Formats: sequence, C-alpha cells, structure tokens
Amino acid sequence: MIEYKIRDAKKEDCAVIRELIQELADYEKMPDGPKVSVEDLEKDGFGEFPLFHAIVCEVNDAIVGYSMYFFIYSWAGKAIYIEDIIVRELYRGKGLGTALFQKVAKIAVSKSCQRLELSVLNWNTASRKFYESLGGVDLTESEGWNKYRFSGNALLDLAKESA
Amino acid sequence: MIEYKIRDAKKEDCAVIRELIQELADYEKMPDGPKVSVEDLEKDGFGEFPLFHAIVCEVNDAIVGYSMYFFIYSWAGKAIYIEDIIVRELYRGKGLGTALFQKVAKIAVSKSCQRLELSVLNWNTASRKFYESLGGVDLTESEGWNKYRFSGNALLDLAKESA
Repeated sequence: MIEYKIRDAKKEDCAVIRELIQELADYEKMPDGPKVSVEDLEKDGFGEFPLFHAIVCEVNDAIVGYSMYFFIYSWAGKAIYIEDIIVRELYRGKGLGTALFQKVAKIAVSKSCQRLELSVLNWNTASRKFYESLGGVDLTESEGWNKYRFSGNALLDLAKESA
Repeated sequence: MIEYKIRDAKKEDCAVIRELIQELADYEKMPDGPKVSVEDLEKDGFGEFPLFHAIVCEVNDAIVGYSMYFFIYSWAGKAIYIEDIIVRELYRGKGLGTALFQKVAKIAVSKSCQRLELSVLNWNTASRKFYESLGGVDLTESEGWNKYRFSGNALLDLAKESA
C-alpha cells in the first residue's frame, strides 16, 4: 500500500486543484468544460460563504488527488453532493480515490447527512460497478430521474420574463 | 390570467411549505419520501448559514405554490439547482409554476450563475416537454449522466472505513 494523507484543502491548493480538474475533464472527454480560474476557486471556495468544500490527498507532501463536494437539501433533509473525485493518472489503482470517497462519506455522517449523492457517466462501467459494489443506487435506473440543465441563451431568456 | 405575487419565503411559511412538499411527494408517487419536519425547515433554511432558499407564490395572500433551490458548484462555476417547484392542485394550469421557475432563473442570472439545473422523472412527459420547450437539455440523454445515491447502511458503512 502507498502511504498518503488526506486533509482539508487550503486556498493555496487551488492552482493544483485547477490542474486536477483539467485532468478529469480530459478523462471525461470534455476538455473544454472547465471555465473556472484559479482565482474563481480561491474566491468561491475559501471566502466567508464557501460555495464548495474540498479535501486533498497527498503523497510525499505533493497533492495527487482531490474531491470537491457541497451540501444539498431535499425533503429528506441535508445531504452532500460529490462533484469531483480525481486522482492523478500515475496514482490510480492504489485505493486513493476510494479513500477520498470514504472521507467525504465520513464527513457526511458527521454532519448528520442522510444521503451522499453524485453523478456518473453511464459509459463509465468501471465507476458504476465500483459505486454499486459499495451500495450506491442508480436513481436514474431505479426511479427514473433525468438531469436537466438550462444555460447560455436559454437561461438568459428565462430570466427576461417578468415574473 | 390569475393575479399572483411571488416573494421570498419567510420562516413563518414553513408549515405551509411542508404541506406543499407532501402534495408533491404524493404526486410523484413517493408519499413516504418527506422526512423533514416544519422545525427542520425553519432551522435549515432560515438560520445563519441557510442550506436552501425558497420563494412562494401567493394568490389573495394565501400561499398556493413554492420553489426550493440552492447553490451548487462545478468546473463551470456557481449554479442554481431547483429541488422543488410545487403548485397546489387547484391552481395548476394557470402559469404559476412557470412564473416560479422564471423567478428562480432570474435569481440565477442576477447571482452570476452560468447554469440552472433540476431533475425530472422520466415518466413525467408533460414536465419534460415543458422544460425542453424552454431550452432545457436532458443531460442524462445527451451526455449520459446517471444520478447515484448512498444512504442508510451503505452510507454508514462507508463512513466507518479508516480514511
């Protein structure tokens, strides 16, 4: 087993986090997806009202993985949504992604969350099997939830209405 | 057209909001879904660090609909997720749901959000057509995103690991 340490992310980690986000985007075949700058991450995650939280995984004091999460809410109460879990390619297959995932689960339980949620690309069979082996339920399959997004002009047009 | 007013929810609205949530749960065929109490809603939505925001729609000073939303984050930056849009059965088909939806879109744009997201049950053809007519993209179909959830013992077991 490889030796690693997981800790809360600090503002100074944002440059490395931005690199890791790009690595995930490339892996997910969406290289142009990331729009946030290092400065955005610093401002949005480490100000008075953080919009997200993050933990990092270090090997020999170098960050080799990270997870971004935030709190969501529903009629079941408070929950955590995991936006990203990323481990640098060289360090995959060593249990670091699992460790990051378990750490967020631990945070969720410690904060009295009843649920931990995330989205998985349906062609990513390895990830789906992994999450299912840990008791995750595919809500798109079991309950029929589809995810919708409004952005760009569709969002601007909606906002123009006089409600 | 019916006359209505949309305003931010207040702590005192939580009892009515809880009723509306139950009405939505019944409609979505998940009558046992709602676990939050009126007190939970008051504490979680109207404290120092609100876990959600809500707007209500009034007709003749009575609340007949509401929407719950919160901020989420991704590599595209800040966004809003709509958890609920509910209009009492008697008041459906009068444009109130659309007005609530447009109001949240307006809030999203005013807060510099790039995206507005929500989940729709795939058997709910009317809602899907409605959102698609307004430019919403079904990400489950177009990009393949499936929604996963960990809860109950699966979540507790994950949190027990020594990460």
